[in-house]
Amino acid sequence: MKQVLLDLAITLDGFIEGPNGETDWCIMDDDMDFDGFLSGIDTIFYGRISYDAWGNYLPEENATPEEQKLWEAVHSKNKFVFSSQHREDKNATFINTDIIERVSEIKKQGGKDIWLYGGASLITTFIQNNLIDVYRISVHPIALGSGKPLFEDLKERLNLKLIKTNVFKSGVVQLIYTSDS
Amino acid sequence: MKQVLLDLAITLDGFIEGPNGETDWCIMDDDMDFDGFLSGIDTIFYGRISYDAWGNYLPEENATPEEQKLWEAVHSKNKFVFSSQHREDKNATFINTDIIERVSEIKKQGGKDIWLYGGASLITTFIQNNLIDVYRISVHPIALGSGKPLFEDLKERLNLKLIKTNVFKSGVVQLIYTSDS
Repeated sequence: MKQVLLDLAITLDGFIEGPNGETDWCIMDDDMDFDGFLSGIDTIFYGRISYDAWGNYLPEENATPEEQKLWEAVHSKNKFVFSSQHREDKNATFINTDIIERVSEIKKQGGKDIWLYGGASLITTFIQNNLIDVYRISVHPIALGSGKPLFEDLKERLNLKLIKTNVFKSGVVQLIYTSDS
Repeated sequence: MKQVLLDLAITLDGFIEGPNGETDWCIMDDDMDFDGFLSGIDTIFYGRISYDAWGNYLPEENATPEEQKLWEAVHSKNKFVFSSQHREDKNATFINTDIIERVSEIKKQGGKDIWLYGGASLITTFIQNNLIDVYRISVHPIALGSGKPLFEDLKERLNLKLIKTNVFKSGVVQLIYTSDS
């Protein structure tokens, strides 16, 4: 059964963006093995805004070979977009209704795992409906004081089970949890 | 030179208390070596409310020997209380004014380190004035969704430098940072 993986950066005070959408504090260490993460998934879940911004993004021609390769890997995945819009799109399947049932069907297809890409409102929907199997949270060594919280409008406490930690040379600590419910 | 140590538990979403002051999510693992922490300090900084609640607390007669010993260790420390109140107290020195200068003087006395006990408003004052040397943050495997944030009313971003991590069997991960400014 496929698992739904959330993989993102948060500040020590729990924000995924600053008060004006700032993500400039976000570190990409070369020891973070993002390639390894990508090689373990075959499916990506997007919200509609994130899909329009990044779902078919092509890097600049002068981008590094590593960056080109990363985007090729991303675009080789099977893509689903959760949206109130109906749209035919040759590169993605749009899902408009019955999120829980559709996610359950996709998970049963087997194969590699699913990356829950975001944005924030799709992540909140997935957290609230207990649809995330693995939380990979990269805690950055900074506090912003305000911003957009990862865990927003929780209906109840979310209990997690720590399964692994990775410490990167930048001081980022990745905490990997499974849902404990 | 003495260092000022903050040592506390936060949730994965950055809260030190739930919306109604709840701390029932807070885990005391027996592998956390709180005794070791206490043996490295000789001074405790309290806010006035915390001091009145805990500064001279005596455990119940039927408390375990470990708990009795812990409180004996706490009460053997040199205590300072930061307060707008003037008070003569045989067990503590009250500091009413010139916090930055007074903290600086105490740090220069040498010896072991200083535990910044809290409460929240004293911690905020210390963070805002960059008076904390070491942050020992025990990230608990839970999100509350709302509560009292550790980092509140920051005037600017707080950049930290990771120096150590400790993973406990409960799933608590202790992140130890120094101030990076």
